[in-house]
Amino acid sequence: MTISRVRIKDEQGAKAMGKPIGYYVTLEVPRLKEKDPDLTEEVSKNLADELERMVEIPRDATVLVVGLGNWNVTPDSLGPKVIEKLIVTRHLIQHMPGQFNTKKGIRPVCALAPGVLGITGIETGDIIRGIVEKVKPHMIIAIDALASRSMERISTTIQIADTGVYPGSGVGNKRMGITRETMGVPVIAIGIPTVVDAATMANDTLDMLIGQFTRQATPGSDFYKLLEELDKDEKHKLIREVMRPFVGELVVTPKEIDALIDNAAKTLAGGLNLALHPGIEYHEVSTFLQ
Amino acid sequence: MTISRVRIKDEQGAKAMGKPIGYYVTLEVPRLKEKDPDLTEEVSKNLADELERMVEIPRDATVLVVGLGNWNVTPDSLGPKVIEKLIVTRHLIQHMPGQFNTKKGIRPVCALAPGVLGITGIETGDIIRGIVEKVKPHMIIAIDALASRSMERISTTIQIADTGVYPGSGVGNKRMGITRETMGVPVIAIGIPTVVDAATMANDTLDMLIGQFTRQATPGSDFYKLLEELDKDEKHKLIREVMRPFVGELVVTPKEIDALIDNAAKTLAGGLNLALHPGIEYHEVSTFLQ
Amino acid sequence: MTISRVRIKDEQGAKAMGKPIGYYVTLEVPRLKEKDPDLTEEVSKNLADELERMVEIPRDATVLVVGLGNWNVTPDSLGPKVIEKLIVTRHLIQHMPGQFNTKKGIRPVCALAPGVLGITGIETGDIIRGIVEKVKPHMIIAIDALASRSMERISTTIQIADTGVYPGSGVGNKRMGITRETMGVPVIAIGIPTVVDAATMANDTLDMLIGQFTRQATPGSDFYKLLEELDKDEKHKLIREVMRPFVGELVVTPKEIDALIDNAAKTLAGGLNLALHPGIEYHEVSTFLQ
Amino acid sequence: MTISRVRIKDEQGAKAMGKPIGYYVTLEVPRLKEKDPDLTEEVSKNLADELERMVEIPRDATVLVVGLGNWNVTPDSLGPKVIEKLIVTRHLIQHMPGQFNTKKGIRPVCALAPGVLGITGIETGDIIRGIVEKVKPHMIIAIDALASRSMERISTTIQIADTGVYPGSGVGNKRMGITRETMGVPVIAIGIPTVVDAATMANDTLDMLIGQFTRQATPGSDFYKLLEELDKDEKHKLIREVMRPFVGELVVTPKEIDALIDNAAKTLAGGLNLALHPGIEYHEVSTFLQ
Repeated sequence: MTISRVRIKDEQGAKAMGKPIGYYVTLEVPRLKEKDPDLTEEVSKNLADELERMVEIPRDATVLVVGLGNWNVTPDSLGPKVIEKLIVTRHLIQHMPGQFNTKKGIRPVCALAPGVLGITGIETGDIIRGIVEKVKPHMIIAIDALASRSMERISTTIQIADTGVYPGSGVGNKRMGITRETMGVPVIAIGIPTVVDAATMANDTLDMLIGQFTRQATPGSDFYKLLEELDKDEKHKLIREVMRPFVGELVVTPKEIDALIDNAAKTLAGGLNLALHPGIEYHEVSTFLQ
Repeated sequence: MTISRVRIKDEQGAKAMGKPIGYYVTLEVPRLKEKDPDLTEEVSKNLADELERMVEIPRDATVLVVGLGNWNVTPDSLGPKVIEKLIVTRHLIQHMPGQFNTKKGIRPVCALAPGVLGITGIETGDIIRGIVEKVKPHMIIAIDALASRSMERISTTIQIADTGVYPGSGVGNKRMGITRETMGVPVIAIGIPTVVDAATMANDTLDMLIGQFTRQATPGSDFYKLLEELDKDEKHKLIREVMRPFVGELVVTPKEIDALIDNAAKTLAGGLNLALHPGIEYHEVSTFLQ
Repeated sequence: MTISRVRIKDEQGAKAMGKPIGYYVTLEVPRLKEKDPDLTEEVSKNLADELERMVEIPRDATVLVVGLGNWNVTPDSLGPKVIEKLIVTRHLIQHMPGQFNTKKGIRPVCALAPGVLGITGIETGDIIRGIVEKVKPHMIIAIDALASRSMERISTTIQIADTGVYPGSGVGNKRMGITRETMGVPVIAIGIPTVVDAATMANDTLDMLIGQFTRQATPGSDFYKLLEELDKDEKHKLIREVMRPFVGELVVTPKEIDALIDNAAKTLAGGLNLALHPGIEYHEVSTFLQ
Repeated sequence: MTISRVRIKDEQGAKAMGKPIGYYVTLEVPRLKEKDPDLTEEVSKNLADELERMVEIPRDATVLVVGLGNWNVTPDSLGPKVIEKLIVTRHLIQHMPGQFNTKKGIRPVCALAPGVLGITGIETGDIIRGIVEKVKPHMIIAIDALASRSMERISTTIQIADTGVYPGSGVGNKRMGITRETMGVPVIAIGIPTVVDAATMANDTLDMLIGQFTRQATPGSDFYKLLEELDKDEKHKLIREVMRPFVGELVVTPKEIDALIDNAAKTLAGGLNLALHPGIEYHEVSTFLQ
């Protein structure tokens, strides 16, 4: 497992990286898709550490965890599956403050899997905003399955950022982000790539092939020049055109996607439970992950 | 199929019936648990008629349908399964008012399956109240699986009332109802009994047995008197005491509960789709129920 | 956890116990329905020990595990779910005898979830007999969800016997047993009660009530006599008559039956994996149970 | 919907087509993935017609339907899901020959979802051979999800052939086919492509791109020659090499694979039920498909 941490501090950095200002952590775990209780434990603990590094959460802060995505579409069900495995305590602390005590390292955690726009007819941002106004959490953690831009990342990386998240791509043009600006509280986004869109994958493969051809071509030859001149954007545009009948419908994904999502959900829930309830041992946490 | 309609008009009636003031409709459909597309269609249409009788919904009224209950507990998953099969249109009408036109008999419908307190840590009433404030619906329709007090009703009746609903029975004593009072808009509750709690069932059986014994006993005999004197509440209390180790854990349910819930969800969604979108034919509605 | 072992040696014993000649082991685990990895491990190990006590399995014996029951009916899906979590090795040992070596404590294990008569149209016994003739296993282990005769046993006991099993109760009168006689090899049956039929439960409750009444009734009174005279069979017959419209359809089961079956399957698969592959540590076994 | 029928009569034809001697029918149904009861009915009826054209089945012939594939891997679960929706009658005709009469157009149909080698440890061919010996069917119909060689075919074609089927690609090199030769009775294979393997898809995309480049290149130029000379097999080999870390793991599939498989299973089961039970109307058949 390798961990990379990147902080983009200003607009200049944001431009250079092509990402908003913020703090980004990536856990690369090549064996993430394997069922291995020891690995689940190790990654959970590292995830908890990174969350604690990223943001300071007061001992008695109420945290709202949001599981984005669609229950009924396997590659999209990561968020709701994490919610299922969380140790949710807000209601217990409210009703039995003696027994469930924030001093003992149990924070008031609540959670929601709001569904997707196509099923609810309501902007996900509006649903969460409505709940934020009732629950008044100290922060939001949003979990989502990601469409990766690279085949290598599928279910091998956990991506964390303090920049919030923009759910789905819907009928309207301007989707409401789930960010500190719209929600009024910090929003941490955690995601795992579960699919690559088919056009991206075709593009990646072509790039790898061109790399091979270039190494084999005689420098100075027509072919060499042609390969050098293939403009990146042009090429991607051409691919999209050729694949138009399929793009947006087809995704590239591991065949064992059901098992993979299950495993990834355990790892994320494990890390969240540890980070949010420092008073609970991993041993006890693991009973919630089964 | 038989339909009964009861209106409780005042406190006196409420006392007599042991239910709040309101309008109650019961559709008795003994074959409801059978997979039969014709029956699904017939019941859907009757359900739509009864909904229209019960409450007048303006042509362009936004309706919020709430699917109560827990995805992961089969007998409790009726509400979320109905949500899946609804024709949700609010976002389409907002973004493409030309194409999806309320004048053509398509109302802006939105929907949510908020989950249960044990999974969210938030009172279901608070979640819905938060969304009501954002969406500002004209009315709410709440769907829930019911625990019946009678074995005969399990998956054979559809119960509709304009009195709202009190979700689950939770850790705290005062649960927030989802009613016109708490939500500020009319709340129609629709439910289908899917389980009987085990103590109720023992009690029912005992009553049937006592009925048999009484008919066989000699009037005036000690035994006859004893049976007559068996106070109803005493008896139920005794049963609960005897069954204490199990009560609240065990339920009585058909073994084919998975198939039954699926079928019941189709019927309710069919009825709602017809009632909320009078411009859509049953023929088209049925494609959403599969 | 308590373990009881009973050996019925002759016809006299069989009559007294109301069960065929054979060796019966019961593991009582009141907390079996709880998700607790430590308990799963402990019970798995005890189950493995009891299996080894019950029958000697040569190091290189091929074992066929049969998961009886129906995938699509939750309370009946225990057998198929165990099959999913088994470490199946027969094909690996056949094709890569160097790598997967029976000397290292890995036996050639194969498995099948044949389905139920209503879905296959073939007697389950015939299906298994056909496979036994091809695979020629040294023994069969048959897993099944049981309908308990007692509410207390639901998902709190594991029952093992060397007497084989009679699957389902079907349309025909004479069902083919899966026994040493019909299969030609030893058949170990392992089951966990997951439901009680509703008539049995009514009967149990009535017995408990009668017990209460009897203790309260004056000896010698009419009522006392009546209670004493209530013939057991008569009573059960009466209950069945009263409940006729429901009997056979309704079962009593914990509401969280989905989670319970999942947990029970893990425990059984854990025990089988340990017993059949003595060369694999529990640590490694547990990765197959997730 | 277009239907194509191809008969390969001799070895010469087999060589030319790259397929064994046999009769091949393809139903192209571009909208197959849509939920549309009318389309399901139409395709079911056409499928039934094609089956009847392909093979004559005596009125009282026992038919064994085999659902190949893995329950737990969504893109691979088509076969088992069809089995669930079949009208299985063999046991009813055996036990109640008066009521279920083959003269009325109900054939004795039985079915099995044997699982895959990795879960059973037994060659699927051996399992089916064992059952064939017990049941002695007149013919076998084998259903399987296919890995397509073309993106366009994913869930838009139904492929039928009288050549049998070779399940999975397993650990050993020589897999046992399910064919007339190995089973002793005719074997009809029915499949629907549900995935494309990722290397095939990269290859297809590259071909489309090369087509574009070739049209744009000056005839006679170096580049034109290079493109012409790109040997098909060489290119595919190169792609496989470049993609080696992913090939065999990643598949291309529609994101809504869960709904698609469900819909495809309904259509196939509908067609089989009509073809095998000519005495049952589509109206009644449809109740089994829900």
